[in-house]
Amino acid sequence: MAATGRSFIGFREGANGNTTFRAYNPTTGEALDPEFQAATPEEVDLAARLAAEAFVSFRELSGAAKAEFLNSIARNIEAVVEPLVERAHLETALSKPRLQAETARTCNQLRLFAEVLQEGSWVNARIDRADPNRKPLPKPDIRSMWRPLGPVVVFSASNFPLAFSVAGGDTASAFAAGNPVIVKAHSAHPGTSQIVGEAVRAAVRARGLHEGVFSLIFGAGTSVGTQLVQHPLIKAGGFTGSTGAGRSLMNLAAARPEPIPFYGELGSTNPVFLLPGAMQARGAKIAEDLYGSFTLGAGQFCTKPGLIFFSEGKTSEPFLGELKSKVAQAPEFALLTKGISGDYDKEARNRKQRRGLNVIAEGAQRSATNPYSASAALYETEVSSFLAEPELSGEHFGPSTLLIRYTSKQQILEAARNLEGHLTATIHGTEEDLREFSELISILENKVGRILFNGFPTGVEVCHAMVHGGPYPASTDGRTTSVGTQAIYRFARPVCYQNLPDSALPAELKNANPLGIWRLVDGKMAQEGR
Amino acid sequence: MAATGRSFIGFREGANGNTTFRAYNPTTGEALDPEFQAATPEEVDLAARLAAEAFVSFRELSGAAKAEFLNSIARNIEAVVEPLVERAHLETALSKPRLQAETARTCNQLRLFAEVLQEGSWVNARIDRADPNRKPLPKPDIRSMWRPLGPVVVFSASNFPLAFSVAGGDTASAFAAGNPVIVKAHSAHPGTSQIVGEAVRAAVRARGLHEGVFSLIFGAGTSVGTQLVQHPLIKAGGFTGSTGAGRSLMNLAAARPEPIPFYGELGSTNPVFLLPGAMQARGAKIAEDLYGSFTLGAGQFCTKPGLIFFSEGKTSEPFLGELKSKVAQAPEFALLTKGISGDYDKEARNRKQRRGLNVIAEGAQRSATNPYSASAALYETEVSSFLAEPELSGEHFGPSTLLIRYTSKQQILEAARNLEGHLTATIHGTEEDLREFSELISILENKVGRILFNGFPTGVEVCHAMVHGGPYPASTDGRTTSVGTQAIYRFARPVCYQNLPDSALPAELKNANPLGIWRLVDGKMAQEGR
Repeated sequence: MAATGRSFIGFREGANGNTTFRAYNPTTGEALDPEFQAATPEEVDLAARLAAEAFVSFRELSGAAKAEFLNSIARNIEAVVEPLVERAHLETALSKPRLQAETARTCNQLRLFAEVLQEGSWVNARIDRADPNRKPLPKPDIRSMWRPLGPVVVFSASNFPLAFSVAGGDTASAFAAGNPVIVKAHSAHPGTSQIVGEAVRAAVRARGLHEGVFSLIFGAGTSVGTQLVQHPLIKAGGFTGSTGAGRSLMNLAAARPEPIPFYGELGSTNPVFLLPGAMQARGAKIAEDLYGSFTLGAGQFCTKPGLIFFSEGKTSEPFLGELKSKVAQAPEFALLTKGISGDYDKEARNRKQRRGLNVIAEGAQRSATNPYSASAALYETEVSSFLAEPELSGEHFGPSTLLIRYTSKQQILEAARNLEGHLTATIHGTEEDLREFSELISILENKVGRILFNGFPTGVEVCHAMVHGGPYPASTDGRTTSVGTQAIYRFARPVCYQNLPDSALPAELKNANPLGIWRLVDGKMAQEGR
Repeated sequence: MAATGRSFIGFREGANGNTTFRAYNPTTGEALDPEFQAATPEEVDLAARLAAEAFVSFRELSGAAKAEFLNSIARNIEAVVEPLVERAHLETALSKPRLQAETARTCNQLRLFAEVLQEGSWVNARIDRADPNRKPLPKPDIRSMWRPLGPVVVFSASNFPLAFSVAGGDTASAFAAGNPVIVKAHSAHPGTSQIVGEAVRAAVRARGLHEGVFSLIFGAGTSVGTQLVQHPLIKAGGFTGSTGAGRSLMNLAAARPEPIPFYGELGSTNPVFLLPGAMQARGAKIAEDLYGSFTLGAGQFCTKPGLIFFSEGKTSEPFLGELKSKVAQAPEFALLTKGISGDYDKEARNRKQRRGLNVIAEGAQRSATNPYSASAALYETEVSSFLAEPELSGEHFGPSTLLIRYTSKQQILEAARNLEGHLTATIHGTEEDLREFSELISILENKVGRILFNGFPTGVEVCHAMVHGGPYPASTDGRTTSVGTQAIYRFARPVCYQNLPDSALPAELKNANPLGIWRLVDGKMAQEGR
């Protein structure tokens, strides 16, 4: 159970690396045992070859068998929840209750995909029946369904060591669609990764699957990731992290001799529009909830509300007063890594020097004992300054947010039209506000993956309808989601069968519909056999 | 009605170009009137700006209104079918019956998308209802549906001057999803393009839509296409053509500051596996049908069967005899363009010089009066030579095909495993052959978009289940199709609404389900209101 510091190459362990690294406790800066060994190029290549071998049988598994595999991973994770949360807390400084909740979410996510597989209709089966008498040419029998792509590489996130890491959303959806997975563990929480990796590997063994269905690769720099994205046997990639790293990997994926889909969930500042009616009715309450949202997880959520548009004037005073007071009383927040801490400090210095941008409240400063903590910060500017300085739209990872004053409806619409892609946008308003600003929803639909009303974007529900994605730069591919059951389509593609005899068709497409799934038969939804 | 030679920039006409070109009759080489003027960079930019303006209202159209628009285009095309076929025949050398059938197919395709819009369920509406009592946190109300991407650029194909051109599949599916379209006309059939473009423009006017919903751009070189793919207001691209041109455009799309989806349908040689039982039972008939398929449209179909695996030995003699005789009696075939003719001749010379590759039959040679015609050719080699020379897998556009002798099941499986991505793969066999070669289907599922049994891949059915696409290099994005109703998803993405009041939701997501569409409500398909 204890971390060995070695990559899992299928059922084998990486043993030949010369490059080593350690995790560290971000609240103290001290290095943690054990030492982790970066996988060698030969080991990475072996993982890819094993994955390609495993794909031959894994892709043929029934939905029920894949569901059992996912449920088995969830059970294995639950069996180690205590040491897992303990190690994750050491490596990330995230609170234990948060990590317990994230473990539960991770397991629920695996089980939700298992339900989707048991139900079976996700394959989008379509049947257009033959008509031998059609003129001028007979109509053939055409049937299609979604099938897996092949080995997938998943890059773990720093900020969700469980839900977006080794057995997180990308891995769950890639497995669900029928693809082997190679996870590149995040170097900030390798011990956590190895505990979860062992839970996955044990499920592969217990279900009698080919060892290549899962590998877990350690690496300290970018070479392992580069090799994986460029490997000819890898057919897709999933990533959650910074815009810079995600874009680099995306570029590599697109430049391959055989380009592959690469799903990067990158930066987002999640604009929030506080409309006059809501401000009037409950400004102080909005401030309280906003504070809770932008400091959640020390502000290290991809859905952190980082751009807050509010109307200038008396109506906003209770909101501003409450928010400033909350920030002024804020404790220091432990950040995940030295790198995030350095970036946060650097951007804070930039913002303090920027003309037209004011720091209107700050929380407790960093204590001597916590080298990578952050001080909460509340910035303020006006719409015209915001529009003139595109960098202000960028993600500032950590417990800060930027208030932007507007004086007219025209200003707020102009600001909305000038937004880049974001994961979410939020409107606080009354129903009357919504009628008055109806154009705003229409503009935001083009800018984001999710529009919220009278809530906050942190806390992404794992469900069928969720869309966690959005136009670039929120993600590298705004046509998909990384959370919720629609994520399964990222790792699948449609395959069509023309005039195949019933005996040679997959169960999902056979005349009798033995799985009882929903199918589009001659353009009509049907759950019966033909 | 007569072609003016000017681009349509919305309702305006391009008037400032200095670069001109003409179409020519490929059976004689003579230039055709009128002179066409390439659009200037300013005109291209204006088309993009008009499209972005038009998107604001076009995206809000109901399914019924978009359906009326598509049906109106179909009616307008049908009203000009005679001059259209006349001009297309002059510009492409394709036969009039073929062009009449292609016009019918183009109109049927528009009407099929109209039906999809009228039915309405394509938006993939998903509703997960709120549960305020859920612990530890209340569950929000989450709803999602697919929405359009924004202005789309469509590059017309040379080989389908109607069905894959101005009002072809890409345009129809982009309009259906709610996107304005800018078509880059193919310079080999600009007159045909302008007649169809006028039919589309008239429908935009008649339906009272914004002029920017449609523009038709002429250009002789690559600069207009490059500008369109790189234009920041363009949000997706569709292309049908050569691997070289498609890959270049795809690279531009991926390298933009904001990368966009680019759907290129590129080269494919469509392997055909003739299994022993089928060969025994009906070798001569297979030869006859194969000849018909690989010479259809002078072999200028992306689904032309270009790699034919057959078993060595006596069983194959009737097949070989019949095929050689057919090819030996073949007339000369008029090709679409000077460029295609030059490429066909060059590859024919290469093949004649290649060791291990034999020309086993040739059709009539080019006559003096037809400068761009092609002579049918039948090549033959064996599996080991084929595997040793990857270039033999490449597309040879025109009336030729390559027979590849195999001597064992192992050889055929090895050849299949080594295939690149193709649009289609075909198996001819008995049900017993299929059992014996069951592994073959499993291998081919990973290589192609469509698997056919006892048929030929030319003649792509436009229906709900069709998949016309495939892994690279068959297409730049194997997750989609360019034919059939699933193509609508190429130009759309999911958008999610959290806790919006019913009054602010799109009709597709309102509680009462006023459109009566199929929706996934709490994980279950339902056509009722909630």
